Amino acid sequence: MTQSESTAQLLGQITWSADGLVPAIVQDALSKEVLMLAYMNKESLQKSLESGQTWFWSRSRNELWNKGATSGHTQQIVSLHYDCDGDTLLVKVRQNGPACHTGAYSCFYREAEVNGQAATGPSQQAHEDRFGPLSR
Amino acid sequence: MTQSESTAQLLGQITWSADGLVPAIVQDALSKEVLMLAYMNKESLQKSLESGQTWFWSRSRNELWNKGATSGHTQQIVSLHYDCDGDTLLVKVRQNGPACHTGAYSCFYREAEVNGQAATGPSQQAHEDRFGPLSR
Repeated sequence: MTQSESTAQLLGQITWSADGLVPAIVQDALSKEVLMLAYMNKESLQKSLESGQTWFWSRSRNELWNKGATSGHTQQIVSLHYDCDGDTLLVKVRQNGPACHTGAYSCFYREAEVNGQAATGPSQQAHEDRFGPLSR
Repeated sequence: MTQSESTAQLLGQITWSADGLVPAIVQDALSKEVLMLAYMNKESLQKSLESGQTWFWSRSRNELWNKGATSGHTQQIVSLHYDCDGDTLLVKVRQNGPACHTGAYSCFYREAEVNGQAATGPSQQAHEDRFGPLSR
């Protein structure tokens, strides 16, 4: 099966939302930390599969978005999975620099209290200290 | 700050979708594998924070859903993070048995070809073999 055939097959197996999108979880293939969640439409999924880099659909700017094209913080795709009901993607990547536009390694740097337990996760500052030098 | 105060604060920091939901990525706190993605509304997030177990909003059944209440495959919440723009949750859990309703450990057992590379991930059968005994 050629790449375009397997891409066409995959596109048909995805359950697209009413606005033609599917959420894509991006995970660091090395550390296994979850980095971000963004949305793909058919065109951005196709570009991701063909280029091996992440392309998303920006819901705020209404445009295709090649992650890291401006910042240099690109994501090289290691694998792409889809879930049991085909309505979510899991993209494992080699992340260059921080994934978050704030400069944090992961977008998930804020922790909520669960059942009265205080937050214990690393602070945003810790993430910035770790990756700050890469983004300067 | 009491649990109810911190819960109220968190609920106010989440960017809810037009239908009052937020996607929640569920990750195994031990293996760091991403297990599933489901949706929470305010009530299910509140129940999750208070009980320490995952509660979701089922978009297909239009009802609150305590994950594992029927199957026994519950999820004990270890931590709950939210992302930079407050529109996605990351819930790290201790997963009891398989997370997927198919019996697979993770819902993401199907792999797509990227840039002509054949799928290399473990098959669904491998996941079932690993966790099957737990669910019998």
